[in-house]
Amino acid sequence: MVEAVPLSLYRATVKREWVDYNNHLRDGYYMVVFSEAIDAFMDLIFMGDAERRATMTTIYTLEAHINFLREIKESEEVEVRAQLIGHDQKRFQLFLTMHADRLGKETAATAEYIVINIDNSGTPRSAPFRAEVAAALGRIWQEHKDLPKPANSGRSIALARK
Amino acid sequence: MVEAVPLSLYRATVKREWVDYNNHLRDGYYMVVFSEAIDAFMDLIFMGDAERRATMTTIYTLEAHINFLREIKESEEVEVRAQLIGHDQKRFQLFLTMHADRLGKETAATAEYIVINIDNSGTPRSAPFRAEVAAALGRIWQEHKDLPKPANSGRSIALARK
Repeated sequence: MVEAVPLSLYRATVKREWVDYNNHLRDGYYMVVFSEAIDAFMDLIFMGDAERRATMTTIYTLEAHINFLREIKESEEVEVRAQLIGHDQKRFQLFLTMHADRLGKETAATAEYIVINIDNSGTPRSAPFRAEVAAALGRIWQEHKDLPKPANSGRSIALARK
Repeated sequence: MVEAVPLSLYRATVKREWVDYNNHLRDGYYMVVFSEAIDAFMDLIFMGDAERRATMTTIYTLEAHINFLREIKESEEVEVRAQLIGHDQKRFQLFLTMHADRLGKETAATAEYIVINIDNSGTPRSAPFRAEVAAALGRIWQEHKDLPKPANSGRSIALARK
């Protein structure tokens, strides 16, 4: 499957402790890489680690869906790209694709996330994004809103599909 | 959300390197725990590591969907439980729930997987399960087929839901 999205977010090299006895990236560690890519996206929208501490906000991942399309090997460098699928006052929906040079245009994996903003100043609770975060999301949305929706976006698990 | 399923598969203690600066289990590492629980399920159906090597078979995870419902803390012990949602000649669909004593009946997370059997004797390709594996899946299916489908089974990612 070829599914490339516009925004290059993150590069990582597959660590020895992430692979199984076949020297292939284990399924759970695809998610660790995607999670680190989400951190890179947070940096872009003014919600990096230091900004979260300073503003007593954080994010929670509510939901994620991953499709494993190709194997990734130990020591291979992977790139994660992103497309913003939507956002509201408190949440965003982000579609991610994982790539490796060896695979050319073939996508190694896709992942879709819903993430919610949390006010951490007292008991953690959901809250609207800070103004500069909402503005950053709005700018990315202007660039992404007319892109075609990726084929795996909104997908649900089912044996009967094929 | 209370969503407990019948088959206790796996227990793990949350490691220091799995938590974020809030001492909460990071999203990607929920998937690492669920992936280890899938290994325990493979042991149950005669596809443990040694049996896979001996029979030149393995499994690939095709797809996964996770809902993050409650936080899990460093050093906390978690339990993963499972319900078989369906299977065919080559694949099974397994629904998992994560629990911790502190949370009582509240479920910490749910995950649903589709896993496919692979013949590794030459170029890896999908193949029907070995007979004893198919028989083991059939026995579990007899126990699980009349259970209600978990609320999060077959769920798709969408901002519009709430």
